Amino acid sequence: LTAITLTTDFGTADPYVAAMKGVILSINPLVTIVDITHEIPPQGVEEASFVLGTVWHLFADAIHVAVVDPGVGTTRKPIVLTTPAATFVGPDNGILSSALPDEARGAAGGGLARLPPGFAAYQIAGPRLLHLPLSQTFHGRDIFAPAAAYVSTGIAPKEAGPRLAHIKTFPPWRAEALDGGLLHGRVIRIDRFGNLITTIRNVQLPDEGHSQVDVGGVTIHGLSGTYAEGEGLMAYVGSSGYLEIGLPGTSAAAELGARCGDEVILRPATA
Amino acid sequence: LTAITLTTDFGTADPYVAAMKGVILSINPLVTIVDITHEIPPQGVEEASFVLGTVWHLFADAIHVAVVDPGVGTTRKPIVLTTPAATFVGPDNGILSSALPDEARGAAGGGLARLPPGFAAYQIAGPRLLHLPLSQTFHGRDIFAPAAAYVSTGIAPKEAGPRLAHIKTFPPWRAEALDGGLLHGRVIRIDRFGNLITTIRNVQLPDEGHSQVDVGGVTIHGLSGTYAEGEGLMAYVGSSGYLEIGLPGTSAAAELGARCGDEVILRPATA
Amino acid sequence: LTAITLTTDFGTADPYVAAMKGVILSINPLVTIVDITHEIPPQGVEEASFVLGTVWHLFADAIHVAVVDPGVGTTRKPIVLTTPAATFVGPDNGILSSALPDEARGAAGGGLARLPPGFAAYQIAGPRLLHLPLSQTFHGRDIFAPAAAYVSTGIAPKEAGPRLAHIKTFPPWRAEALDGGLLHGRVIRIDRFGNLITTIRNVQLPDEGHSQVDVGGVTIHGLSGTYAEGEGLMAYVGSSGYLEIGLPGTSAAAELGARCGDEVILRPATA
Repeated sequence: LTAITLTTDFGTADPYVAAMKGVILSINPLVTIVDITHEIPPQGVEEASFVLGTVWHLFADAIHVAVVDPGVGTTRKPIVLTTPAATFVGPDNGILSSALPDEARGAAGGGLARLPPGFAAYQIAGPRLLHLPLSQTFHGRDIFAPAAAYVSTGIAPKEAGPRLAHIKTFPPWRAEALDGGLLHGRVIRIDRFGNLITTIRNVQLPDEGHSQVDVGGVTIHGLSGTYAEGEGLMAYVGSSGYLEIGLPGTSAAAELGARCGDEVILRPATA
Repeated sequence: LTAITLTTDFGTADPYVAAMKGVILSINPLVTIVDITHEIPPQGVEEASFVLGTVWHLFADAIHVAVVDPGVGTTRKPIVLTTPAATFVGPDNGILSSALPDEARGAAGGGLARLPPGFAAYQIAGPRLLHLPLSQTFHGRDIFAPAAAYVSTGIAPKEAGPRLAHIKTFPPWRAEALDGGLLHGRVIRIDRFGNLITTIRNVQLPDEGHSQVDVGGVTIHGLSGTYAEGEGLMAYVGSSGYLEIGLPGTSAAAELGARCGDEVILRPATA
Repeated sequence: LTAITLTTDFGTADPYVAAMKGVILSINPLVTIVDITHEIPPQGVEEASFVLGTVWHLFADAIHVAVVDPGVGTTRKPIVLTTPAATFVGPDNGILSSALPDEARGAAGGGLARLPPGFAAYQIAGPRLLHLPLSQTFHGRDIFAPAAAYVSTGIAPKEAGPRLAHIKTFPPWRAEALDGGLLHGRVIRIDRFGNLITTIRNVQLPDEGHSQVDVGGVTIHGLSGTYAEGEGLMAYVGSSGYLEIGLPGTSAAAELGARCGDEVILRPATA
């Protein structure tokens, strides 16, 4: 029994997500549909990929549909991506980056990634997975939802259309290691509590010794284990394995005036 | 296997929608429930009907519950409406208009529509579909949810209560065709991207030749095929078949100071 | 067939709720998951309990998960609570108060409640219900979701860990009866329409005679039966059986500048 997840920037005030669900359930009435989020900032392709990347591995068996698609109606390809762990459906604009291992993703600047063994991408072009007639503006309903639904019924992804050797990706979310033990990262996401999620990964943190974090003109001394143990701005490893900056009871983002993309530096504590 | 959809102005911060789901699942644990939207503006009966009208046909087999109900507790009747394509449940205040073909809906000014052949409405009055005791304020939980759930289990809609020959409707969403090839419409809905959805239908658009659109004191020249091809304010046929006004990357509604009900005129391009 | 409901302060912009759903569906792909709300104000433990308390009895067969958990990562215990009517999962911080009858809940000031016959609480500590490794910050995903999912598959709650004789509770939501027929309550919740939900219960209201309600420096004369029959500020028994203050068409909370915790007094009408 398969689930289909949805990650979009459609919001929930409009019936766009429901349109996708109607299409999916009309093709596969038995599938369970799970909303990852529909509140990705408009055009936030990389953020959508990051957010999906923090949860897709929690689903034992699912097809993950991601639609943040500023290029809808242009020549960007709609694709189905199969991996050893799950299946993904979306536009080929980098939104499926988090389905790939770091090694397969492009260096800084992004670009095309050659798919590693066990991974395959197909352009959705054939008649078997399409819902006709197509609109020019709503491929979530007309291409991505039916493709996912048909695959959930057992149609092989290769039926979608031509196989692609490369897909567009963003570089891995991982801080740059600089001289002197410095880690140079950035804010990749601000959650609804105002916590800053950074590209500094827990596996990049030094095993021992004190650290300090520079962010938004402020220096935070030491890393904390839980929200509850600290007061004031604190740095800690968040639930998805990235270093986060939080402020218990209120918004660190508001306190710091921080925005996505802001620089975050972790360095050994100065004596 | 039937789905039940929900369209309301209840929002999702409060547990009102969950109350309806609890009632539904207690009667039919196997039914799939789909949220269309719960963010209809308070008392937006016509908007709710329009929104539901853009998606209900995408569900192969469903019972659509719509509850925007400023007259709750008064004499307006709760009804079940059966059509050749789907079943609808809601108050008889016009919210089920979009279940009817244009020809059956009242002229401007709205009013009562005689149901065409193949359509039947029943007042929910009998004991078989009601959840007692009734509250005076929450018929979504006490009348509409159980009625939909019982019908989803196979109870015939006619068990609901007395058959009604007429139901209340809004006039069709369609621009008025004026002399000189002018189409006179209005903004019926503003979506969360700030796109204006108008009552001008794609089937009303001229087959060829350039057009211009007057809205909010601005004139837009020509219709566009996709979001991506334009800059600045653009007019295009949206995914539901209505002419829309958008502004790529930002809100056309904010740019124009536009509101629901604003006049929109499409006219042949002036030389 | 069991449902699992979720009540949290996680919001829906972030993928935290989806993470819980992925964990649940990976353990029990057949379970139906229902969102009660994810918009509880941050740290609103008592409000979460109140909100869940207004709907859990509408579910014929469900496991209710409630996670508003400012003490995550501290020594507060995660628990499973079984009752004659349903099963509950959450932190032992008072959030499960509404699962208990009034008589079992502490007096004003709250505190520990001894569980009555037919009720049992277990600390989630054993290996059978845990999802390892644990994070320090996201027990919704790592403890509460898997515990509920395993119980939904038929694992006995007592497998969770040690039985607890007491759990933390808030006092019952019920007005204090004072001399002269006065009822002294407070605003426990403001819904999205701006209606004030008070702790004055319908069963506490006088059987006959006129009453007046003092709230926010204003006096409302008489109780109304429906929204539709009044104009201006009105007091009425809401759909959950508590006295509410509403203002048809707009927000009573905004009109009165009211906040949660504000005092509300019901008294016999002065001649």
